[in-house]
Amino acid sequence: METGIWDWVARQAWRRPSAPALVAGERRWDFRTLDQAVGRAAARLRQAGLGPGDRVAMLLPPGTAAVVLVYASLRLGTALVPVNLRLTAAEAAAILADAEPAAAVVAPEYLPLLEAAAPDLPRLVTGPEEAWWAAAAGTEAPGRAPRGEDLATLVYTSGTSGRAKGVPLTVANHWWNALGSQLHLGQFPGDRWLLCVPLYHVSGLSILYRAAISGAAVVVHPRFDPAAVWRDLEGEGITLLSVVPTMLQRLLDARPEAPAPASLRVVLLGGAGAGTALVEAARARGFPVLRTYGLTETGSQAATELPGQEGEGARPLFFTDLAVLDEAGRPLPPGSIGEIAVRGPAVTAGYWRRPEENRRRFAPDGWLRTGDVGVLAADGRLTVLDRRADLIISGGENIAPAEVEAVLNAHPAVAGSVVVGIPDPEWGQVPVAWAVPAPGTPPVAAEEVLQFAAGRLAGYKRPRALRWTPSLPLTANGKLRRAVARAAWLEGAATAEGRNPA
Amino acid sequence: METGIWDWVARQAWRRPSAPALVAGERRWDFRTLDQAVGRAAARLRQAGLGPGDRVAMLLPPGTAAVVLVYASLRLGTALVPVNLRLTAAEAAAILADAEPAAAVVAPEYLPLLEAAAPDLPRLVTGPEEAWWAAAAGTEAPGRAPRGEDLATLVYTSGTSGRAKGVPLTVANHWWNALGSQLHLGQFPGDRWLLCVPLYHVSGLSILYRAAISGAAVVVHPRFDPAAVWRDLEGEGITLLSVVPTMLQRLLDARPEAPAPASLRVVLLGGAGAGTALVEAARARGFPVLRTYGLTETGSQAATELPGQEGEGARPLFFTDLAVLDEAGRPLPPGSIGEIAVRGPAVTAGYWRRPEENRRRFAPDGWLRTGDVGVLAADGRLTVLDRRADLIISGGENIAPAEVEAVLNAHPAVAGSVVVGIPDPEWGQVPVAWAVPAPGTPPVAAEEVLQFAAGRLAGYKRPRALRWTPSLPLTANGKLRRAVARAAWLEGAATAEGRNPA
Repeated sequence: METGIWDWVARQAWRRPSAPALVAGERRWDFRTLDQAVGRAAARLRQAGLGPGDRVAMLLPPGTAAVVLVYASLRLGTALVPVNLRLTAAEAAAILADAEPAAAVVAPEYLPLLEAAAPDLPRLVTGPEEAWWAAAAGTEAPGRAPRGEDLATLVYTSGTSGRAKGVPLTVANHWWNALGSQLHLGQFPGDRWLLCVPLYHVSGLSILYRAAISGAAVVVHPRFDPAAVWRDLEGEGITLLSVVPTMLQRLLDARPEAPAPASLRVVLLGGAGAGTALVEAARARGFPVLRTYGLTETGSQAATELPGQEGEGARPLFFTDLAVLDEAGRPLPPGSIGEIAVRGPAVTAGYWRRPEENRRRFAPDGWLRTGDVGVLAADGRLTVLDRRADLIISGGENIAPAEVEAVLNAHPAVAGSVVVGIPDPEWGQVPVAWAVPAPGTPPVAAEEVLQFAAGRLAGYKRPRALRWTPSLPLTANGKLRRAVARAAWLEGAATAEGRNPA
Repeated sequence: METGIWDWVARQAWRRPSAPALVAGERRWDFRTLDQAVGRAAARLRQAGLGPGDRVAMLLPPGTAAVVLVYASLRLGTALVPVNLRLTAAEAAAILADAEPAAAVVAPEYLPLLEAAAPDLPRLVTGPEEAWWAAAAGTEAPGRAPRGEDLATLVYTSGTSGRAKGVPLTVANHWWNALGSQLHLGQFPGDRWLLCVPLYHVSGLSILYRAAISGAAVVVHPRFDPAAVWRDLEGEGITLLSVVPTMLQRLLDARPEAPAPASLRVVLLGGAGAGTALVEAARARGFPVLRTYGLTETGSQAATELPGQEGEGARPLFFTDLAVLDEAGRPLPPGSIGEIAVRGPAVTAGYWRRPEENRRRFAPDGWLRTGDVGVLAADGRLTVLDRRADLIISGGENIAPAEVEAVLNAHPAVAGSVVVGIPDPEWGQVPVAWAVPAPGTPPVAAEEVLQFAAGRLAGYKRPRALRWTPSLPLTANGKLRRAVARAAWLEGAATAEGRNPA
């Protein structure tokens, strides 16, 4: 073995070649077969001129093509830039302009998105069998083995600043996260992950890294389909599943009487804070739900409930330092309410090309300020009180209000706006907007502004409703008071709705 | 948490303070209690003048005192030098002179050994409650957090050179070995290790490191007692057990009809190559035996059978590179017979103060030549054909023939000798000796020479029998042909026995 310790698929193929690695549609691959495809794919990328340090955009649904690309990029030392497939062309263009990939691997159905977002970007298009690497000449190894400090992924996340930020994670970052996850959840020989979350988030990517490191099989679904999940939970002997609350609710609803399959030993429940009723309903039916708090910046989980101690609160992963900081960035004593901060070998070293953001978000001693609010008990239990006040989480997707507001404010009839999340039984939260009419412009219907936004924002970001208001709630120094706007919406305190009162 | 990622007990105490950590006699400690004892013990060592980089000798049987010392030494950044408690004073003196510890922690029953071996070495003597740290003033943290590159242990191992060599292993070496073991064997929440092997070998030490990293409990026995093992396998819900063949045989014999307890999921069978009959008998009774090949130099396991694939051959641990080399140190193609070599982040960087040995044993590209002979299949399966030809393994202890020969040769009636291992139903192997009488000396009984050796060698190293021979089998360049000597012994080809024929 000349691959070093970072080419996990190669190591598994050598140690346990015939162990199951991947189930995707009709495909059933062992690690030997997966390794061969990854070798060809790495060769194909290399023949396309890519090498260590380059970035490769991915516009692929979960499936064989994407799985092979994730591992081939790791082998070659390139950094993967997974593009959120729900974005508009303008949104995707902004990300690609920021990441500057050297090429893209794209599925035919996302070719129009890529053409519109980055017409000049060289691309490899997956064929009908998804085998975009088929044209590779040989499978010769890349010139060098992967390194821990190689940039593995550049995942974009909606922050508070109005445009998506790239979060660089090295091979070692993913590695520490995966090992921390395994020490936390346990790792059983023959584990089988069901992957039914997007691969453009760390929630999905991290499943692939964990599986390759532990030698588990991954059963990949192209999208979340509750009936398909039920089928494979039972038929494929799934032991581990990652979902967000909306998915868990749909899963429960799809078979209202059915108990959880006996093979299932962990259901990681991430995303927005799940309602107690949902968690209890799932547990009552035997779903071993472990609530988790994680971020793109930490390579997914940062704190998770411990098996056997469900309901006691999330505990930090073995490698993750957690603290609660005061406004000045100083750690507070246990039991204090403050800003959650994370540190450790799984945490990103800093946002991509955002020196100002990095200065603001990284406290002394390396703490990354999450913006989320919580309490850390003396015994390590973390209670997340609020995701960062202005962040909206809808069906597992993060929405930055400032980004939506910028689109609304571009409409000529809008002088200003504030976007907030309100509870939604299906999605957890959905965005809604208050807008101030532009002086001197003719009144327009709220629907017209929403239509305007619809062309410029991914579907999940679009406000479900818009209300006109004569003014926005502001702090003394001019910042939006989003909590006030949110409360006002919920209390129905709006004086007018649906029509510009000006 | 300001401890970094290497103070594993501290991290567990923070993450899961009330999880079981240690069972030893009547003591039942959770991680919080263990952490407090370790804190006091680290303070006690510090108050005794010890600090990072110093070495601390351990002359303690397995128990609370030893477990706390292992973790306290890790916390303080000192290197533990565990002394084999079966050694004679002269053997222990040689090790202590080589290791140059700054102090020793010793149980009262081993004080005579220490007094004889190193009368001037400062020592802390365990009290009746074993709490040698009780006199510590406070538990203040050491001045710095442990580091991966800190030397954690200096374990002495019998090699081929006639005197024990120190094997330095860093905190990171143990760490990678522990993670590799967990990825290999699986890691279940609530795992419980039974530790009934010595703590002066890596087989015992590595259990403590693994348990602290994974948050498992350790049930510690002061010695191997088959009845006590059976009692705790059943009563303590043990899931993991490490034994050598002699112990496994005794365990089976102690309750000839009893099936293995249901909780037990792995029995790691190390040491000398176990007989197929023993392994099959154990498996037939439900013992989940996994044969393992390991060395002090690799921090214990290097290759182990995979759960569910027993009998297919040992597979390398995830982080361990294995190769089979030719005489020049070049890797051979799969399927070739050659010298087993290991490499990776768990492997020692080199023997303690043995530059010549290190030049000889480390091949280009960092391969450590084990001296053992084996075959590596293309799919990673390792078959160990022979431990290094001249090494004798008796009841799990390594015996260097050259060391025993040097003692025999010091007897005035002996001109030369060769020591070999012969099969033994209880111990796997036992040493026996051929000796050439010194010219011109009066004949002496073999028994007299054996008595002479008995005063100078640990019991397990003493030859069980000695035969006189007129000459030793030598190669053309004068090296001992041990295989020939061994075959001659087994064939009873000796011309005379028991009395000096000269």
